[in-house]
Amino acid sequence: MKASEIARFLEGTLEGDDVEITACAGLEESRAGDLSFCKDTKHRSSVGSTKASAILLPEDWQDGAPCSIIRVKEPNQACIKAASLLAPPSPKREAGIHPTAIISPGATIGKDVHIGAYTIVESGSVIEDGAIIEAQVFIGEFCRVGSLTHIYPQVTLREGTKVGASCILHSGVRLGGDGYGFNTKMTESGQLTIEKIPQLGIVEVADGVEIGSNTTIDRARIGRTYIGPMTKIDNLVQVGHNVKIKGYSGLIAQSGIAGSTEIGAGCLIWAQAGISGHIKIADGVQVGPQAGVSQTLDGSTKYVIGTPAEPMKDFGGRVLLPKFFSKLKAEVKELKQKLAK
Amino acid sequence: MKASEIARFLEGTLEGDDVEITACAGLEESRAGDLSFCKDTKHRSSVGSTKASAILLPEDWQDGAPCSIIRVKEPNQACIKAASLLAPPSPKREAGIHPTAIISPGATIGKDVHIGAYTIVESGSVIEDGAIIEAQVFIGEFCRVGSLTHIYPQVTLREGTKVGASCILHSGVRLGGDGYGFNTKMTESGQLTIEKIPQLGIVEVADGVEIGSNTTIDRARIGRTYIGPMTKIDNLVQVGHNVKIKGYSGLIAQSGIAGSTEIGAGCLIWAQAGISGHIKIADGVQVGPQAGVSQTLDGSTKYVIGTPAEPMKDFGGRVLLPKFFSKLKAEVKELKQKLAK
Amino acid sequence: MKASEIARFLEGTLEGDDVEITACAGLEESRAGDLSFCKDTKHRSSVGSTKASAILLPEDWQDGAPCSIIRVKEPNQACIKAASLLAPPSPKREAGIHPTAIISPGATIGKDVHIGAYTIVESGSVIEDGAIIEAQVFIGEFCRVGSLTHIYPQVTLREGTKVGASCILHSGVRLGGDGYGFNTKMTESGQLTIEKIPQLGIVEVADGVEIGSNTTIDRARIGRTYIGPMTKIDNLVQVGHNVKIKGYSGLIAQSGIAGSTEIGAGCLIWAQAGISGHIKIADGVQVGPQAGVSQTLDGSTKYVIGTPAEPMKDFGGRVLLPKFFSKLKAEVKELKQKLAK
Repeated sequence: MKASEIARFLEGTLEGDDVEITACAGLEESRAGDLSFCKDTKHRSSVGSTKASAILLPEDWQDGAPCSIIRVKEPNQACIKAASLLAPPSPKREAGIHPTAIISPGATIGKDVHIGAYTIVESGSVIEDGAIIEAQVFIGEFCRVGSLTHIYPQVTLREGTKVGASCILHSGVRLGGDGYGFNTKMTESGQLTIEKIPQLGIVEVADGVEIGSNTTIDRARIGRTYIGPMTKIDNLVQVGHNVKIKGYSGLIAQSGIAGSTEIGAGCLIWAQAGISGHIKIADGVQVGPQAGVSQTLDGSTKYVIGTPAEPMKDFGGRVLLPKFFSKLKAEVKELKQKLAK
Repeated sequence: MKASEIARFLEGTLEGDDVEITACAGLEESRAGDLSFCKDTKHRSSVGSTKASAILLPEDWQDGAPCSIIRVKEPNQACIKAASLLAPPSPKREAGIHPTAIISPGATIGKDVHIGAYTIVESGSVIEDGAIIEAQVFIGEFCRVGSLTHIYPQVTLREGTKVGASCILHSGVRLGGDGYGFNTKMTESGQLTIEKIPQLGIVEVADGVEIGSNTTIDRARIGRTYIGPMTKIDNLVQVGHNVKIKGYSGLIAQSGIAGSTEIGAGCLIWAQAGISGHIKIADGVQVGPQAGVSQTLDGSTKYVIGTPAEPMKDFGGRVLLPKFFSKLKAEVKELKQKLAK
Repeated sequence: MKASEIARFLEGTLEGDDVEITACAGLEESRAGDLSFCKDTKHRSSVGSTKASAILLPEDWQDGAPCSIIRVKEPNQACIKAASLLAPPSPKREAGIHPTAIISPGATIGKDVHIGAYTIVESGSVIEDGAIIEAQVFIGEFCRVGSLTHIYPQVTLREGTKVGASCILHSGVRLGGDGYGFNTKMTESGQLTIEKIPQLGIVEVADGVEIGSNTTIDRARIGRTYIGPMTKIDNLVQVGHNVKIKGYSGLIAQSGIAGSTEIGAGCLIWAQAGISGHIKIADGVQVGPQAGVSQTLDGSTKYVIGTPAEPMKDFGGRVLLPKFFSKLKAEVKELKQKLAK
């Protein structure tokens, strides 16, 4: 796209060559064909050395640039607008069922549904109006996919899984796998036996939930593993059987919630944090990155971190402990010397 | 299903309306259509406020309930029985090969095997009697899948992988990917080169193993990565090349075992724990959640936790250190004051 | 394969029966049919008890073995050579497009490309010469796969993803999923709203990159998430949106890099380590296993470990702190007693 077209779209003014622009990028990582941006003179030197082909600058910018300039009111905002113009066009998933999709005669498909190639929908399942099920997806028996929900390629929903409306499931999401449950016993003859506990429940995902690539959510032992409305789950997250998440919460990448734990509303579980089973996290509590929570958090502390998790103040003190210790050691040495005299 | 049918099945007595029941659920999370349970009067108030349509209560329960009651001997046990009655019917995977499955003429398929739609079995592979290979699975060349083993949709077995009898592989399991092995060298001209080390071995999984969703087990550099009998692996676990697990062990979600490490029999590796490469974990040792083990554990300690991993007692002392420190600091202050006098 | 054939190939001498060999394995894990090896007399007793059918031993080995012996110059090297001879034959992926692959008329397929069964290549995508795209892969619109790149079964590339030449993508890799980005606001009526931020960029992977099973790399919010040349990524790794990795770096299993962080050249991020967003890791820095890095590392320290990450010396001191503390406590006690006198 020509720089002049972008300038027109942004209601800005182009100075310099009407170069061809293919993408947006930050100042330092830009290459030929990129449009970059700078909002203030703080980053002046980076502007001077940018390899971008054009740059979005404030209207009153005085320092020039080594490429074409588009002057705009707010460079940051303008760049986001330009990015939407330059983004690879979102693929159109038009209503219709691909001839290679295998839809059980016992499944119910709503209006304006898209079902991609090599996707399988088994008997008893319901796909509601406007849902997009992309290619190579597996939807087992008696599932429900709510209206306008978008399922990317290579997702699997085991039997009985319910997904609400306007959800997004990214590639590799696994809903409804068996929970981890075994009875370990010693037989009379002293032999260890490990017996699978049947996992008889389902996964239920409420409306407006987004689930990241390769995240796994296990079916309940009995009843429901429940992901409440508007919960946003990142990639590679593990949610154990019978977990309940009230809603409007976030689970960042590689975090894990063990079985039967309850997460309140408006919680944020940061990356790589782990939460033990059978406990409760109160509404609005945040669990810091890599934290390990093994006891119920009643909300009296709003942010915990560390393993075992503790309030930020305590964690900070713990981090500084070696320093405090050295000081105390020096004091004791001094005392000793005084006493020796 | 009618509450009366459930009562009959459980040999209990129904009091109140013969309501329609669709699922089991805990007291507090229950909704209309649910059957809940309560074993003793400790949870009396939760019974009073439950939204379940029916509730399993002990025969001598005195306090009533806001819904239909089914009186039974042991409410907990009864609920598990009822759950099996109410569970979404397990899909039937009957013997037969779906017409869209691509089975190499060089593959050997046993009796009563189920192979689902869009599944691929390559040349030289053997699927033994009664195995269930669901849809969209990839089984490369010269693999073996033991009898009665159940492989869920979208699993991949790279060439040469051997899976025993009565195993369960959940969706997204990856067996036999290349191990992580590179030779990094500086060339004479000072250029860094990174060269792939061929990964020439296989993955071998013994009988009765269960592997959770999106777990990855790498092929050996040479020889076998070995998962011993009855080992139970949870979701999103990483097992590196040439790892050996003797058997009857558990690996909980998001734990990782680095290359060439040996895990004994009856071990339990808790969630998010990490075990370094080239070490040994003795029989029966447990590694706590998020622990980091970098040295061989000879079994003299049965449970370790923390990073670096240590016995529970030491870890507990470490956790309390800031408190102990404050005390000591106060004592030193007192000493100083005494000395100053 | 006969032991005599292996001996001939290795230019060694066979002593004992010309047994049938099927695999290589370590001394202690060997079984009938295995070829094992021992380089020196240190492991003499393990040689004595090995269950291998043949063993590679140094030419001057004096102690015999309970199986056939192949005498060679360097047993370790010889075993690697033998392993390549015994390895399951690498499947041949010959040039050609499987009839069940769905290639958009708008896609461009180079010379000598292999495309496996049930793979999908959408419009606008380019597959360069000699690339191998195995079965059940999904390649969205406007992607590029460089020449000689090998994509294993069940990988997904979302629209716009660019992969360089000579890359290897293992099964379950997810490139180009939406980054985790949401605007959380309170409406005037006090209702919490969570709004998705459009993820308009792409993922770009340079030449010679290898990406392990079930690893996820998110598309940029704007511009590119960039994985530089020769970067080697292990299994189950998370790379957030707009991350830049300069190249020649390694990311070990289950590590995670949060959004917009920059990783220099020649870095090594060990297993289960986590790196916060919007920071920089200088060239050549190593981040230890399970470490948590939340601040820019300028390269003045070459190796960090712990959470929060610190130099090895500091971490070592922290680990020993309880021991140091006990000593100091004893000293204070002594001082007290002296003072009491």
